[in-house]
Amino acid sequence: MGEPPGGETPNSELVASYGKLLRLVRSGQAQTRPALSEWTGLGRTAVTQRITTLLNAGLLEEGELNPSTGGRQARTLRFRKDAGRILTAELGATSFIAGITDLAGTVLAVAHCDCDIAAGPEIVLDEVESTLDKLWAEHGSEELAIWGVGLGLPGPVEFATGRPSEPPIMPGWNNYPVRDRLGAKYRAPVWVDNEVNLLCLGELRDPAARGHEHGGDLLYVKIGTGIGAGISNGGSLHRGAQGCAGDIGHAAVADEGPAGEVVCRCGKTGCLEALAGGSALARDGEELARTGQSEALARVLAEHGRVTAADVTAAARSGDHQAVRLLVAAGKRIGSMLATMVNFYNPSTILLGGKIAGAGDLFLATIRETIYRRSLPLSTRELRIDKARLGEEGGLIGAAHMVLDELFAPEFFARWLPDGSPAGRPELLAAV
Amino acid sequence: MGEPPGGETPNSELVASYGKLLRLVRSGQAQTRPALSEWTGLGRTAVTQRITTLLNAGLLEEGELNPSTGGRQARTLRFRKDAGRILTAELGATSFIAGITDLAGTVLAVAHCDCDIAAGPEIVLDEVESTLDKLWAEHGSEELAIWGVGLGLPGPVEFATGRPSEPPIMPGWNNYPVRDRLGAKYRAPVWVDNEVNLLCLGELRDPAARGHEHGGDLLYVKIGTGIGAGISNGGSLHRGAQGCAGDIGHAAVADEGPAGEVVCRCGKTGCLEALAGGSALARDGEELARTGQSEALARVLAEHGRVTAADVTAAARSGDHQAVRLLVAAGKRIGSMLATMVNFYNPSTILLGGKIAGAGDLFLATIRETIYRRSLPLSTRELRIDKARLGEEGGLIGAAHMVLDELFAPEFFARWLPDGSPAGRPELLAAV
Repeated sequence: MGEPPGGETPNSELVASYGKLLRLVRSGQAQTRPALSEWTGLGRTAVTQRITTLLNAGLLEEGELNPSTGGRQARTLRFRKDAGRILTAELGATSFIAGITDLAGTVLAVAHCDCDIAAGPEIVLDEVESTLDKLWAEHGSEELAIWGVGLGLPGPVEFATGRPSEPPIMPGWNNYPVRDRLGAKYRAPVWVDNEVNLLCLGELRDPAARGHEHGGDLLYVKIGTGIGAGISNGGSLHRGAQGCAGDIGHAAVADEGPAGEVVCRCGKTGCLEALAGGSALARDGEELARTGQSEALARVLAEHGRVTAADVTAAARSGDHQAVRLLVAAGKRIGSMLATMVNFYNPSTILLGGKIAGAGDLFLATIRETIYRRSLPLSTRELRIDKARLGEEGGLIGAAHMVLDELFAPEFFARWLPDGSPAGRPELLAAV
Repeated sequence: MGEPPGGETPNSELVASYGKLLRLVRSGQAQTRPALSEWTGLGRTAVTQRITTLLNAGLLEEGELNPSTGGRQARTLRFRKDAGRILTAELGATSFIAGITDLAGTVLAVAHCDCDIAAGPEIVLDEVESTLDKLWAEHGSEELAIWGVGLGLPGPVEFATGRPSEPPIMPGWNNYPVRDRLGAKYRAPVWVDNEVNLLCLGELRDPAARGHEHGGDLLYVKIGTGIGAGISNGGSLHRGAQGCAGDIGHAAVADEGPAGEVVCRCGKTGCLEALAGGSALARDGEELARTGQSEALARVLAEHGRVTAADVTAAARSGDHQAVRLLVAAGKRIGSMLATMVNFYNPSTILLGGKIAGAGDLFLATIRETIYRRSLPLSTRELRIDKARLGEEGGLIGAAHMVLDELFAPEFFARWLPDGSPAGRPELLAAV
């Protein structure tokens, strides 16, 4: 007889019950011992005993007395979001953002740095660490422990090991032990993921974004220099067998004609990203400028010596026909790929993020129109297609929630609960 | 504060604990009261009380005494797979299979019927019902109750309502209340799904197929007259927001040139199915015959008046160059689409089923080669691409497991456990 899909082991139920109590309290659904007993089906004695353990471990704190509802007054329990801090960073191609959050994923302090990811992991992570150290010196404190570190990278990451795997734009990073390095430095558990997954998770978990309201089958599509997706299934990230799901930028969208011969930075030809990403817009915009087809872009080229994707979107907004044509063509290619994803995955919501997604209503309208035209009618019946709600700190919020989700997941929880009772932060650190 | 992704309600935990006890016993992981207590973390008294309720409801039965391991001997518990029966049917374009299974999903009796799905739901379901009635008259018994009915249809189904939704090859079926009709007839709960989902579920759940061994992120691709996929996530079907995920046949794979102008049966142009499905092979094979490009197919056309997909694959196997060329072209188109799915979803296993998938090693090799060439290296590192293991009864096995999964799911379980205690089969039926 086989293992169940979830991979249960003896006592996983017991361990998971601590995680569930914490989740109910954290989410605000049940915040008194009687309510927790009702929600979990556990007896009052069992709930009281487990809550005492969680109070002793510093994970919960007692709040005010609840207004009496006839019976005995019940004291409110609160998750101690200030019991610790999480260090987060989101690395892009040419810059990174680093931040400190509390245990609710609220960003408390943030720093931006220019940094070329192609300089390699040693130089870039030195820079990330010193930025985090500086933030911590200014905003941390001796009483507050670092509970975990969450990092987003602009390329495929094997989630289980926290190592980049043949990332196209990150020379020198292949298989580099990012998790191990940061874990040794901060003596805290570390999780590393593709940045688009973290943007997706931020939208799902952040109370202001409320991506979870749409049933949790969310597709987050980042359209920046490159193009990538984050996928959620019933409110959790779908990372796939090797943890690299969501790579839509290097799918072939053209195999014939001139488009099929465009070489992508990944080395293949005809990739979506090579034809419709930010780099493609910049390249094609520069061509419009050189050949004089676009006066607006020719002026940009003369002035700055190059044309960027932002120049193309600005020219389109100001009415330049050729720039509009480029954006519409890119929107159609992206929309066609997303229609395929809609047919395949049937998401409840698509959120479009990244700099190019903010390029203007025409671009968004083209993507929308193409998705609706090319998808199965049933799959678009209640599909929402919107701009992402969180700004540039979305990746940090997502990184914090990745750490929180993992810390309180039964598998991990079991590691700091070796005897079935929570042992608090010191054991958490020792387990790493 | 929002609902958690799972949509918990008070006491769902209690209800779910019955489902978990049943699952542990059904899978053979824990089959004594002490073992169940250890696996669930529930106290011995709670386990004993709940097991008694399940025994009284006829869901479990007592087995032999376990060999003593020092302490008191514990009696083995067994799930009563013969406590009831499940009626199943899988409908194709021109025929259907109907069957009776036990509560472990084993097919006990089966019947094949020719039947044109385009005749509409009234005629086709009359035929299905009379076939099931005949099977039941021969193989059922008065002591055995029908616990549920599982049906697979060759088109998109809104899983929540059990109604087909704008199915391309099923005129007259749009929004027809298939579930309600069968539920009224058999006085049992009914679930209806796309047949490819059921083929996928059969591979996941059947002990002989063991699709779950590969981590459960399985992609089942059926290549027959049409092309469709079933998706699993961590061992459960991913049906998507409207329950119609997996529709890869009508994704656009060509938007330029002659291929981009081929009209699909869905009304759109350039669909994968219209260029690489069984109908496409038959159409293009007939063209090869008419123009004399393939001698082998010209002979077939002269003899039978038409060319089928099976004729094309047979001609290819016997070395006909033009037929080989057709198959390779179809394999490349399918492989390219699957490469996009591999990049997007990062499955652990792809299983290829359907009549054309069995066309021969060259076809399979072409699909494999294209997937490996076009996918992200990390996503194919441990990817397995195999032929499906279950034969034509796979859909019936999947249909039975769909019914079992739903019957014992906490949401449904709660309907026949209104007061938190299982009430057995009569209440199960009354709840429908």
